[in-house]
Amino acid sequence: MLKFLKKTSKKAGLPPGALIHIGEKKTEQVKISVIDYDEEHILEKEIKDPQETFYLKAKPTLTWINVVGLHQVDIIETIGTHFNLHPLTIEDILNTNQRPKTEDFDDYLFVVLNMLYYNAEEGEVTSEQVSLILAPNLLISFQEVEGDVFDSVRNRIRKGKGRIRKAGSDYLGYALVDAIVDNYFLILETFAEKIEFLEDELLDHPNRQSLQTIHEMKRELLYLRKQVWPLREILSMLSKSDSDLIHESTGIYFRDIHDHSIQVIDTIESFRDLLTGMLDTYLSSLSNKMNEVMKVLTIIATIFIPVTFIAGVYGMNFKYMPELDWHWGYYAIWIIMLSIAVALLIFFKKKKWI
Amino acid sequence: MLKFLKKTSKKAGLPPGALIHIGEKKTEQVKISVIDYDEEHILEKEIKDPQETFYLKAKPTLTWINVVGLHQVDIIETIGTHFNLHPLTIEDILNTNQRPKTEDFDDYLFVVLNMLYYNAEEGEVTSEQVSLILAPNLLISFQEVEGDVFDSVRNRIRKGKGRIRKAGSDYLGYALVDAIVDNYFLILETFAEKIEFLEDELLDHPNRQSLQTIHEMKRELLYLRKQVWPLREILSMLSKSDSDLIHESTGIYFRDIHDHSIQVIDTIESFRDLLTGMLDTYLSSLSNKMNEVMKVLTIIATIFIPVTFIAGVYGMNFKYMPELDWHWGYYAIWIIMLSIAVALLIFFKKKKWI
Amino acid sequence: MLKFLKKTSKKAGLPPGALIHIGEKKTEQVKISVIDYDEEHILEKEIKDPQETFYLKAKPTLTWINVVGLHQVDIIETIGTHFNLHPLTIEDILNTNQRPKTEDFDDYLFVVLNMLYYNAEEGEVTSEQVSLILAPNLLISFQEVEGDVFDSVRNRIRKGKGRIRKAGSDYLGYALVDAIVDNYFLILETFAEKIEFLEDELLDHPNRQSLQTIHEMKRELLYLRKQVWPLREILSMLSKSDSDLIHESTGIYFRDIHDHSIQVIDTIESFRDLLTGMLDTYLSSLSNKMNEVMKVLTIIATIFIPVTFIAGVYGMNFKYMPELDWHWGYYAIWIIMLSIAVALLIFFKKKKWI
Amino acid sequence: MLKFLKKTSKKAGLPPGALIHIGEKKTEQVKISVIDYDEEHILEKEIKDPQETFYLKAKPTLTWINVVGLHQVDIIETIGTHFNLHPLTIEDILNTNQRPKTEDFDDYLFVVLNMLYYNAEEGEVTSEQVSLILAPNLLISFQEVEGDVFDSVRNRIRKGKGRIRKAGSDYLGYALVDAIVDNYFLILETFAEKIEFLEDELLDHPNRQSLQTIHEMKRELLYLRKQVWPLREILSMLSKSDSDLIHESTGIYFRDIHDHSIQVIDTIESFRDLLTGMLDTYLSSLSNKMNEVMKVLTIIATIFIPVTFIAGVYGMNFKYMPELDWHWGYYAIWIIMLSIAVALLIFFKKKKWI
Amino acid sequence: MLKFLKKTSKKAGLPPGALIHIGEKKTEQVKISVIDYDEEHILEKEIKDPQETFYLKAKPTLTWINVVGLHQVDIIETIGTHFNLHPLTIEDILNTNQRPKTEDFDDYLFVVLNMLYYNAEEGEVTSEQVSLILAPNLLISFQEVEGDVFDSVRNRIRKGKGRIRKAGSDYLGYALVDAIVDNYFLILETFAEKIEFLEDELLDHPNRQSLQTIHEMKRELLYLRKQVWPLREILSMLSKSDSDLIHESTGIYFRDIHDHSIQVIDTIESFRDLLTGMLDTYLSSLSNKMNEVMKVLTIIATIFIPVTFIAGVYGMNFKYMPELDWHWGYYAIWIIMLSIAVALLIFFKKKKWI
Repeated sequence: MLKFLKKTSKKAGLPPGALIHIGEKKTEQVKISVIDYDEEHILEKEIKDPQETFYLKAKPTLTWINVVGLHQVDIIETIGTHFNLHPLTIEDILNTNQRPKTEDFDDYLFVVLNMLYYNAEEGEVTSEQVSLILAPNLLISFQEVEGDVFDSVRNRIRKGKGRIRKAGSDYLGYALVDAIVDNYFLILETFAEKIEFLEDELLDHPNRQSLQTIHEMKRELLYLRKQVWPLREILSMLSKSDSDLIHESTGIYFRDIHDHSIQVIDTIESFRDLLTGMLDTYLSSLSNKMNEVMKVLTIIATIFIPVTFIAGVYGMNFKYMPELDWHWGYYAIWIIMLSIAVALLIFFKKKKWI
Repeated sequence: MLKFLKKTSKKAGLPPGALIHIGEKKTEQVKISVIDYDEEHILEKEIKDPQETFYLKAKPTLTWINVVGLHQVDIIETIGTHFNLHPLTIEDILNTNQRPKTEDFDDYLFVVLNMLYYNAEEGEVTSEQVSLILAPNLLISFQEVEGDVFDSVRNRIRKGKGRIRKAGSDYLGYALVDAIVDNYFLILETFAEKIEFLEDELLDHPNRQSLQTIHEMKRELLYLRKQVWPLREILSMLSKSDSDLIHESTGIYFRDIHDHSIQVIDTIESFRDLLTGMLDTYLSSLSNKMNEVMKVLTIIATIFIPVTFIAGVYGMNFKYMPELDWHWGYYAIWIIMLSIAVALLIFFKKKKWI
Repeated sequence: MLKFLKKTSKKAGLPPGALIHIGEKKTEQVKISVIDYDEEHILEKEIKDPQETFYLKAKPTLTWINVVGLHQVDIIETIGTHFNLHPLTIEDILNTNQRPKTEDFDDYLFVVLNMLYYNAEEGEVTSEQVSLILAPNLLISFQEVEGDVFDSVRNRIRKGKGRIRKAGSDYLGYALVDAIVDNYFLILETFAEKIEFLEDELLDHPNRQSLQTIHEMKRELLYLRKQVWPLREILSMLSKSDSDLIHESTGIYFRDIHDHSIQVIDTIESFRDLLTGMLDTYLSSLSNKMNEVMKVLTIIATIFIPVTFIAGVYGMNFKYMPELDWHWGYYAIWIIMLSIAVALLIFFKKKKWI
Repeated sequence: MLKFLKKTSKKAGLPPGALIHIGEKKTEQVKISVIDYDEEHILEKEIKDPQETFYLKAKPTLTWINVVGLHQVDIIETIGTHFNLHPLTIEDILNTNQRPKTEDFDDYLFVVLNMLYYNAEEGEVTSEQVSLILAPNLLISFQEVEGDVFDSVRNRIRKGKGRIRKAGSDYLGYALVDAIVDNYFLILETFAEKIEFLEDELLDHPNRQSLQTIHEMKRELLYLRKQVWPLREILSMLSKSDSDLIHESTGIYFRDIHDHSIQVIDTIESFRDLLTGMLDTYLSSLSNKMNEVMKVLTIIATIFIPVTFIAGVYGMNFKYMPELDWHWGYYAIWIIMLSIAVALLIFFKKKKWI
Repeated sequence: MLKFLKKTSKKAGLPPGALIHIGEKKTEQVKISVIDYDEEHILEKEIKDPQETFYLKAKPTLTWINVVGLHQVDIIETIGTHFNLHPLTIEDILNTNQRPKTEDFDDYLFVVLNMLYYNAEEGEVTSEQVSLILAPNLLISFQEVEGDVFDSVRNRIRKGKGRIRKAGSDYLGYALVDAIVDNYFLILETFAEKIEFLEDELLDHPNRQSLQTIHEMKRELLYLRKQVWPLREILSMLSKSDSDLIHESTGIYFRDIHDHSIQVIDTIESFRDLLTGMLDTYLSSLSNKMNEVMKVLTIIATIFIPVTFIAGVYGMNFKYMPELDWHWGYYAIWIIMLSIAVALLIFFKKKKWI
């Protein structure tokens, strides 16, 4: 399946640090939105040229630049150059094929995550790469497509409520990661509901379609796990980070999402085990039912075979067959045939075959 | 299965630290009971307003506040604010969806555990979250529903016997955790009895219902393991804790429950292996029996098919069939048919097919 | 299976440190035997009141107190109090439900082990808890039933040969643990012989009983592994112990049994793999044989079905059936039927179905 | 399969350090090419005698010697002696049977890797050993056959673009390893495409050939994993190396390929799981279909067996069979036979067997 | 299988350090051979009394004593006493039942290894214990039977070529271990060839014997892995040893065999996976073929059953059966029967059952 390995052939043979966007062109026009705020003021705008944001860097306020769409390489490069990002960082942002990871470049922390979407109807999990640059008073986030997952964070900033307006870029980073991980729980819930539905279906009227669905869900959970697994390590590193960029008080918050990520992985594993159990139950019940059918049919056949033989015997045309001339021969034969059938039925019953 | 992932959709999109009770509203009215004691005195009362307990804080006696019911968020919040609990702690208490864990907030230790109940008839394990706040001279416990597991601890305090009246809040915390873990053994015993019963049943009169039961028990053990697994780590951390909140002498006691938790996990694993073994034995014995039946039936059919053919031959109406006119033809044919049947039986016997 | 979890319901709800004997009452009367010796002298006696041994504590000789039977709680308690054992230690001695473990209480080392017995006829492994208290010049051992495993150690002490009379309580402790672990090898040997016997049986005349035996042995190996697994860790800890109670020169000896314990676990794993392999071989050979039988039977049926049809055709009573009047019709039909049978046989042969 | 263990019998019994080329003679003539460059100058030539390159060692420029073909042992030995390579290093270069590894010999770093090729038509992965010697201002690479994987690196050096002309031998080493690992992604892509094709095929018209292909792909993935697995450790070591030979700034680049190698392994594991899932789906759908066929056929047989029996009965030649003389007997029998057939059909329908 | 656990019952109950040879008496007469050499001189002799070698100890030359046969306990004991070996070391040498291990007794290093032999015809791997004592200027090796694996080392010493005459006892020890591990590769090659042969056989003419062979090979690989697994750890310890007995320069050589041992284990694992894959392929192809056969046979039966019924109908003896009197009745019935058969064939074809 190609989604387990996004196309990378564009890249092979190029120098490291080569800036090419790898991934589908998921949005039409790169959208850059800026929120600049401190405890008292807030400034929001949508811009086209990233250079419009650069003057904010000098100010002591916290600046969050959100870039949606990665296909205009020059925009990303301009931002990268201005904020002194390492060539490999820019490459990783553009190549939306990264394993989730975090890297500490002294000046800034680089975090790559996957935003996951679940299309319950097609039963397919898709992922979008989100990259975060965490610097003092600055957070830059790069997304492939526009989603609504960050809206809750935006609203909290706008409302000016809570810790978010007082804390630094590390807390803002935490809020974004938290929004992404919370979203994972929504996906798991959809899975949970689908599994519950499947379980009822298998009990009531099992069919081959359910089998197909179980296999598909197992495959999607495999994909999900592949996406979430590295998160655990990342969040553990962030919560224990000795980087100056993450305050100790924010570490506790990252530890909290770390716990959540373990819960996500635990639940994925449980789901996989549940699905395997359902599959086993289904297959063995199917095979049981099949066997039951075959047994009944074979027993019917077995009862008729001897009596048909007897009928065959008295259908023979030998000249001298004394029984044929007996007056009660025909009735006697019926009695014999019925006796055989009943005897066989009793025998099978005693053997507990029926 | 939704119980593997309690509903969290209420939470998604909210700021971290948002105080919303997640879980079913399991009790009607929040009940707060206080036991305040030292070696010589003891004071017990049931209160409605948590503020009534706050004056006890100043006293050198040990105060145990037990809160049953979490749906009145304001009560939990009042307690949290008064005792300086971290916002994340209050959130974790309310969100009864936590993985068991322990966190050291310098001022207090926060422990989240699961109380487990097993409904043997419906074959279902359910869990309830228990949160403990362990501070000097203070222990606050939060439960979702009222149970009788803590009664034994209460009685020991009332009787004034043993170490519990002399020791600090860490020993009280240990006593509560011990009561919870002891309860796990009771669940395992019920499982053990059910497994033994199942084993006998499978030997005596295996049926499809037992199969269903095995699969259900495996699923519940899966759930049990998911609940108990993190406990091991927690208790290991508590027993080796360098926190001032846990005295070295109490560490030995936590090490003891740590051993118990390992025993619980070991037993769960053994039970899973036993059930898998039983399943395999059952399925292969079933398939064996089925094969046996089919073989016998097929052998019966095989013996009758050739002789029925012979009967068919002499049922043909050709004008010139010399055998039909022979005087002893009919008897000769009977002898031939019996010989064929006997020969086949001997052949099958020699081949060890019957 | 209850033996995977000995009854603990007596305990639940009791304070930690509550002294109740958990386990079957395996012996009639508690037996206490003392051996007090140094390089030159030896004193052996059987006593009833543990207090008779207390004067030996002051002497520089090494005292080994062996207690058989745990149901008289007061005797154990008297010993515990006199030798300053921690309440949890006494509880662990009485609750014969412990996972093997070792604990260092500064004054003494506490070691819990399992003595294993294998009843080859019933194919069942049973275990008995052995607790050792290792203090300077003192070793107390607690057993549930009297066995002969320690006799070899007793004899070596009596003969005054070897290191045992010169070395301290740590070496005596080593000798006892060594005797227990040596006993494991005897059990494994019985297993090895039984596996070899089974393998021959499966090759010569496989039957359903062997299947049952394989499953039983797998279950018992599961139990065995559960008992032996923690030993590895314990012996590793003892061999690297920095406790003053174990001399460095004795550490080498514990390292030796540590190697043995790894060997025991390795062998158990190998046995499990072997049994699984045997099971697979047996099942697939069984299914192969079954298929073979069904195929032959079905082929017999298939050959007779067309010819029986032909016989049926000429058994029809149509007035105008020219073949019936032909002189050689009957013989011609025989030739046709034989040709069909032979043609089918050749076809099956060519297809390699027979 | 011999490719899992290349022939080593030539070696057994020889002293360590014995210089014998182990592997197929994959190229006709050993080819040595040299690129010597710094930021401003570049010198490229193809030579026959390795001694021609030795004068370059003294110069401050970076020298890359690429040796293709290992069967002329004396050439490798000359190079080894001149550059003070350890005898074991030379042996490892010649014995193309190495597990990927890295060794730090103070003076130089020795890296062994596998270049992998996938012949999609024959479905076979083959590997070629690449050895790198990384010394200050010097990089020697040994290949078995000439490939085009390093061409991209050569071109980047020629173009004088990017970091490669400025950086040292460690960065050049990184560039070569990166080219090799990039190549792994190309192989995985071919696999991904083949898996997708197979999945469609299994859905549309499953056949036995697909089964064979799945098994072959699993085997090749096994081989692939065996080759790639050690890479992870190597790259982790290189990225954290405290050797003077790798600058800290290059460490970041090695960390980047380390991430890639984890991605490769993850993808291999996912592919294996996917193939196993496909296999299971295919086999169970096959068995389902088979059962369906058998069931229909058996039902047809079961319906005809009773009615054939009845026809047999009235084919008997008894003198006194009243039904035979009835005027409507024949039609009555037809009605009875049809009723039986319809009743059975209804019964089967009700039982949900058809 | 007893070979997975050599007989140890002789030992149980004996004091630790008891000197009893455990293992088969594999050689007639204990053979002791000595090679004493330095860079310039070499002395070789075969002796009977180990005491003849003791004067060599004082000399600065390197002495290699090779003892073949362990059943004359007194000889081993004399050597042990003279060279101050620990009682446990002597016990381990005699008890040829050791797990491979290495122990550092300050004065000497003790290494236990297994020499493996593969009897390809009987398909059985057997092992022989080799013990090495590594002291300054002294190496004592103990073997159970005489083999030719050490001959290559002897020849290198005799020829005076290479590092071996210059280096110390650690390098000699390395050379011996290397010879043993090289021998493992020869065994793996035989396995590889057998697997390749089996694979071809399964493709061309699969039979039940191949199945048996696969199971046997899996069992032997299990045994092999059990023998080789501990080696990895041993060689890792030797290569990183901080013992004075192993020079740093020799450590590199041990690291080299460490790599080889990992390769051996990797290859064993790959072989096991390959065999499992082959087994799966074989079983599923077998079951496929079986199903194919059964389907064809059942289809033949199903086609004939309805037409036989029709023939049966017109074999009935009713007086009034109008069809029987029709002139073309017989031919019409043939046409009807053929039409039914053809219709069924078309139906099966359309359903893709044939």
